[in-house]
Amino acid sequence: MSQNGLSIALLHHPVLNKVGETIGSAVTNLDLHDIARVARTYGVGDYYVATPFGDQHELIEEITDHWLHGHGARANPARREALAIIRPARNLDEIVEQVSDRYEQEVLIVATSARRQQQITQIDYPALRERLDEEKPVLLVFGTAHGLAPTVLQRVDAVLEPIQPDSDYNHLSVRSAVSIVLDRLLGKHR
Amino acid sequence: MSQNGLSIALLHHPVLNKVGETIGSAVTNLDLHDIARVARTYGVGDYYVATPFGDQHELIEEITDHWLHGHGARANPARREALAIIRPARNLDEIVEQVSDRYEQEVLIVATSARRQQQITQIDYPALRERLDEEKPVLLVFGTAHGLAPTVLQRVDAVLEPIQPDSDYNHLSVRSAVSIVLDRLLGKHR
Repeated sequence: MSQNGLSIALLHHPVLNKVGETIGSAVTNLDLHDIARVARTYGVGDYYVATPFGDQHELIEEITDHWLHGHGARANPARREALAIIRPARNLDEIVEQVSDRYEQEVLIVATSARRQQQITQIDYPALRERLDEEKPVLLVFGTAHGLAPTVLQRVDAVLEPIQPDSDYNHLSVRSAVSIVLDRLLGKHR
Repeated sequence: MSQNGLSIALLHHPVLNKVGETIGSAVTNLDLHDIARVARTYGVGDYYVATPFGDQHELIEEITDHWLHGHGARANPARREALAIIRPARNLDEIVEQVSDRYEQEVLIVATSARRQQQITQIDYPALRERLDEEKPVLLVFGTAHGLAPTVLQRVDAVLEPIQPDSDYNHLSVRSAVSIVLDRLLGKHR
């Protein structure tokens, strides 16, 4: 699959904890691997991983180094190819700057949420697919822990409609959420 | 979302390793959590986890016990609800027997594969959705490691078409694969 105008970002700060406080969550190995693999499968060129914490940047570097340049790169070249799209960043501003620089045009910043956000413009899948079909760049922002903090939702252009808003159970892992959203936007069965 | 006729199974044996040998893979904590969460979200009633190894059954029990009856059950009731659909089993035969007993009618057994399987009847998403709409039971079988061994593929009724057969990269985690397949079969955006 050729690349498209979609970039994705996984924010570890500012996100919410179980009781709705704003926190910084920890980077996990599997968020890097699973999300890089599905992003690479669907032709996403850049997977930004944002955390403001220096030790967490070291962790990202240790993990990606192993697979890009260490033993992992020789043992599993397919994994190398996936992890090569990971771009560490400090925060959303830095990511928006990098995506804008790359595409040299205005980028639509779209947040994701498991819940309907009444105060923010909602965009649906057909509208977002249309934008991508027109080769306009889109940055899709996912939150770890219990989701993106209000300060993030307030600064994006739109929020994507929830995945299963009418389910009586709505607690997908962020790894599942990214997989489903990418398939809905870029999968060949639309 | 109300329950439907779909059951899913994750096999840890017999599956293939990187060089195509048949192996038994290790149960992982996150395969239990992520897949139970997405299955519960889409109204799947039973998530079978098969391994022939006794120590692996003990591991499944330790993990699910914590979330069903231990501290996890009180700290995170939503996680409890997801992990409650996990059904440990020894092998595919045992699973087929249990699903048949539950539905008291013939169950269509459908394997999944990242590659096209020329020797086996292929079923596509619309056909499988139709079957589920008619409330006929379906057991969908996923493999860990590098996928289901030929002995499994030979005994199922059909194999589901691959997720992204034309992508130049096709190395999804099984957690991503289950998420995407459930959304394609049961998601509200079809």
